[in-house]
Parts: sequence; structure tokens; C-alpha cells
Amino acid sequence: MLLEKTLERIRPLDHSFETEVQNRLDALTKPQGSLGKLEELARRVAVIQGKVPPQLGRKRLFVFVADHGITEEGVSAYPKEVTAQMTHNFLRGGAAINVLARHYSIEVEVIDVGVDYEFSNPSGLRNCKVRCGTDNFSRGAAMSRAEAVQSIETGISIVEGAATENLFLLGAGEMGIGNTSSAAAILCALTGATPRDAVGRGTGIDDSTLRKKVAAIDRGLEVNRPDPKDPVDVLTKVGGLEIGAMTGVILGAAAIHIPMVLDGFISGAAALLAQRLSPHIHDFLFASHLSAETGHGVLLEALKLPPVMDLEMRLGEGTGACILMGLIEAAAKILGEMATFDSAGVEKKLL
Amino acid sequence: MLLEKTLERIRPLDHSFETEVQNRLDALTKPQGSLGKLEELARRVAVIQGKVPPQLGRKRLFVFVADHGITEEGVSAYPKEVTAQMTHNFLRGGAAINVLARHYSIEVEVIDVGVDYEFSNPSGLRNCKVRCGTDNFSRGAAMSRAEAVQSIETGISIVEGAATENLFLLGAGEMGIGNTSSAAAILCALTGATPRDAVGRGTGIDDSTLRKKVAAIDRGLEVNRPDPKDPVDVLTKVGGLEIGAMTGVILGAAAIHIPMVLDGFISGAAALLAQRLSPHIHDFLFASHLSAETGHGVLLEALKLPPVMDLEMRLGEGTGACILMGLIEAAAKILGEMATFDSAGVEKKLL
Repeated sequence: MLLEKTLERIRPLDHSFETEVQNRLDALTKPQGSLGKLEELARRVAVIQGKVPPQLGRKRLFVFVADHGITEEGVSAYPKEVTAQMTHNFLRGGAAINVLARHYSIEVEVIDVGVDYEFSNPSGLRNCKVRCGTDNFSRGAAMSRAEAVQSIETGISIVEGAATENLFLLGAGEMGIGNTSSAAAILCALTGATPRDAVGRGTGIDDSTLRKKVAAIDRGLEVNRPDPKDPVDVLTKVGGLEIGAMTGVILGAAAIHIPMVLDGFISGAAALLAQRLSPHIHDFLFASHLSAETGHGVLLEALKLPPVMDLEMRLGEGTGACILMGLIEAAAKILGEMATFDSAGVEKKLL
Repeated sequence: MLLEKTLERIRPLDHSFETEVQNRLDALTKPQGSLGKLEELARRVAVIQGKVPPQLGRKRLFVFVADHGITEEGVSAYPKEVTAQMTHNFLRGGAAINVLARHYSIEVEVIDVGVDYEFSNPSGLRNCKVRCGTDNFSRGAAMSRAEAVQSIETGISIVEGAATENLFLLGAGEMGIGNTSSAAAILCALTGATPRDAVGRGTGIDDSTLRKKVAAIDRGLEVNRPDPKDPVDVLTKVGGLEIGAMTGVILGAAAIHIPMVLDGFISGAAALLAQRLSPHIHDFLFASHLSAETGHGVLLEALKLPPVMDLEMRLGEGTGACILMGLIEAAAKILGEMATFDSAGVEKKLL
């Protein structure tokens, strides 16, 4: 019900406001268009908010953590236990995402939607566990349809609960050993891409493990036959709980017009599910960077979202999203803080 | 004398420290290499400092302002008076560079090395005027050799004067109507590139003005015959005073091992002069972004510096440098603040 109600609330973005934003950008003391992508970021945020200059506020990154049964197939370079261990690392502030979030003044909220571990001292960890990890999707469905919907609705609820907190930007990040397998399977199921084009080395597997991973995903698609016209079926069959939760956050953010910054391959798969659930999602999303993970380029093309940067990163967690959130904030300040040619007494273009 | 003494002080960077930095990067809780260009930025800063983790400190951008006699040829979209008007805008904090510098906590120092205007109330403006703008280089030398050396030594002195101020990163920015013409001429003179490949639309000129600009630069190279083996001669004949000062800042920073972040086309021309003056300069420089200005790609190839980002920007002032200074600081914090696999109790790679 919450999912359906949220989908109904997501309306197409009104682009008529763009002219007003563009006029403001062109009045500022710089040659027109000379700030390139920064101007586009500023324009998009202003249009989503319907305000020029955009109103600044809190920046928050949701980091969803969950385990994946597909790790049984030996598809990852790290043992499954690392999901829980890295969750502890997030909570203590020692992971890359913590460092970058502090640097860019971004709040990090870590949410357990499916780690296969009972956290005994979950200080700072939000417990929204749907189940203790997915089943191995190379042998059957990863989860039940009810669990898939629950994971999405968890994400929606989290955004709704924060709606009054003066949020300026939201970001989606994740951690879950095995989740590049799930993201690749979702990409294949929704777009018809082959595992060959969609499957990459994740945290850094060797050639023989990569072959195993491709085979496991092939088998998962064969066994499950996810319905490409039914994104919830795709999530059910080959998905991950953190991917479902990110899909929910993306939908929830669009419903209340908060710009949503994607990270890399995994959050991109969640965005693709969200786009297939709602045709209006596209205009609320920002693709932070092109990941070095194979398949991310194909995924961004399917999303029709050109990445702002290419920093050859492939870590996930929300690290790329953090960097772009800092840049979007800078772009928004351009609209709010720069003088105009008139106010600064600077002569205009001659020609 | 100061120039010669500075060139003698610039030594090749000792790369033997790289292994130690790499070991530290690889011990951190992330798959090896997964932070891509961020890891490279962190490694380079650590090697320049000879410290792992790098020591953080103040970030400062020098914005040099000067006028150009070549504007007599009608090569720019804006009147020459805009140089002084924008200088006032910098001092009041209303320009793009002020907004970005505030966002990334970067100090901005504005230095007049050659604006053709007597500032009556220069609060915040550092007066190092060498002369009131250059002569029109399409009809003869832009300045005397003594003035060219003075502009470089001005930049060196400014860095030397700040050497004890706990500087972590320096950036070079500029403003000067007509200065893309001078930068393009320097690029042609030093590399043999043709004006066709090196000359772009600057602040946004139309096709007929672009033809005029190419012709003026062609004429300037023909009339002056700058000696490609003598960078000071090139600066004398077709340079700009702000370009000379940036060359000096770049040399001065390398002499005291402070990483120097370049902006776009104009600071790139200054860096090329610096590289030709000292073969060891390369390792101290960071190319922030690929400018949309024609010729910047050719220039970065000559510098052998791949740009970190491509944000389709072409404003100058130091705007691209600011964005990268923020990112380099983030990268340095990765080295200093992330937990290791051992300290966080996270299991290592299986394979």
C-alpha cells in the first residue's frame, strides 16, 4: 500500500521554471555557461525545489547494509562476514564513507535491512532488518515478494520520517558482500544486457572467480526468469535487501522533491528499479560518477543519466555520492551568493 | 637573481617514499585501489610532503589580475575595463571564485600585477603592479625582459613570504580580459602548436571575432619570433603579467614542496613556462580539470598532466582549482583518518 501510494504521489517535474533559473544564472558575473556542469547542477536542484536560489539545508547519506546468499557460490573476493565487520567500522567512523561524509558535512545514517548477524551493541545502527540476508539466487528466488515490497517500503518510510528535517540533498550508499552480483543480475533482467557486459570484478576478483560469477548470474536468471515488466518481481528473484531499500529511498525522495544523489553500480541498479516503477523518477536523480565496475556505463545509459565525474572509483558505500553532494552544494551557492553584472557594476558582453 | 636561485632550489622529487604510502593505502579498509584517482591524489601529496599521512593545513588561492594590450585588436567579448571591475567584485566577495573558495574553506588573495587602473580603495588588494597592462603583442613585445622577470619574481616572493604559514595546498587563478590570447600564443610558441589548434573562444566570442583573434596571434608570433628555448623570452614577447606571476608561484611552491593546483588554460600556460624553466616541476603540479577552452587539451598533453575532472568549465579565476583543492584535502584525510583492516577487525581478501 505504501509503495502504491508513493508511486501515485510522484508527479512529472515542472520544467517551466527552468527559464527563470537560467535568467538568474545568465545575470551572474561570469560569461554565460562558463561554469559548465556546475550550472546544470544548480539549475536542476532549483527546478526540483521550485526555488531560485535553492534553499540550502542538511545533506544526508543513507547507507543500507545487507547480506547476500549468492556468496555461497564463491563470487566475492571477501568473506561474507565482512558485511557485519564493515558495519561496525561505519559505526565507529573508520570507513572511507565516514571520512568523506565528515569532509563534506554530510550526515551518515547506517541502516541494517538484512545483515546475517545479530548486532549486540547497535549504537548508531538503525535496525530495519527484513530478514538475515537473501537466499542464493542462483538456486531460486532471493526473497519472497512480500519481503521485496517490505525492503522498498522501508526505504520510503525512512525518507518520509525525515521529511520535515530541512533536507537539501539525499544520497544512497550501501555495503553488502556479494551485491555486485545482485546488481548485475538486476541490470540484465531489466535491460536484456548479457552477464558478460554487466558483470565486473566487484571488490577485486580474479579471472577464474569472474567466470564463476558470470555463470552464477546466468544460472540465476535462467532458474528465476524474472519478469522485466515487473520490477518487484526482479527484486524478489535476484535482488538484495539493501537494493530494495535504496529503491524505496529514491522513490520517497522524488515524492517530496528532494534531489537524490546516486553512488555507483549498486545504487544505480536500485535507481533502475525505481525508474521502471515510476517514469517520472529520472529528473530527481543525479549520477555522481562513472564507476570502474564493469556494467556501470551500461547501467547509466539505461538510466539516461550521464555521470558528472569519472574518478575511477569502485568502492561504493556512498563515496562517490558524497563527492557530488559537496559539488551540488557549491553549485547551489553559485546561484545564491554570486553578484550580478548590475549589482557589481561590471560591463556586459560587447557582442 | 631570485629566479635563478629558485630554479637551483627545485630538486627532483624523491619517489622512493611511494612504497610506504602505497602500503598504508592498501592497509585501509577498502579493496585495493578502489578509491581510484583519490588514492593517486593522496599518494602524490604524501610524496611531495614526505609524510604519511600528509599534514593538513591552510589552502590558499592566489588570484593574479592584469590587463592585456592585445585587447586593442578586438579579440575579446568583454571590454578591457572588466578586469578592474571584476577585481572589485573579487574584493567584495561576489565572484564565482569567492563563492567556491568559501565553500571549500580556501583563502583567496587577490594580487594586482598589472591592471591598467589605479585602485583608489584597494582594501584587500595586494599591489604588486609591474606596469599598467602589457603592450599589444601583435605589434611588438608585450613587455621588457626585465618586466617579465619581475612578474615571475613577484610570484616567487609571494610564496616565499607565506612559507611559514602552514600551507597545505596552493592554487593559481587569474583574471585579465584578453589573457586567453596571450596563453594561446605562449602555447604555440613553446610547443609549435598552430593558432588554429590553440586559440579558443575565451569568454565567448563569435566566429568572426575568433578569426580576428587567430590572425592577431599569428601576427604576434610572426612579429616577435619568441625563442621556444627561452621561456622568459616567450613571456616577454607574448605573455601576460599575471601569467608570469603564476609561473613564479608555481616555481616557488615547488621549491618549498607545497602541492600546486592548476586551474584552466591560463594557469596551464604559466605551468608550461615553469616546466620549461625547471624540468622537475611536473611532479608538484595537479591539473584540476579539462577546460572547455580550445587548446587546453593540447596544453595538458604538453604538460603531461591528465586532468582529474571534466566539468565543461571555462571561467578561470581559479574556480576549477578550488574544486580540486577540496578533493585533494578529502583524499589526504583518507590516508589520515581511515581505519586499517587490522585496527577495525575486518577480514582481508580471500584470493
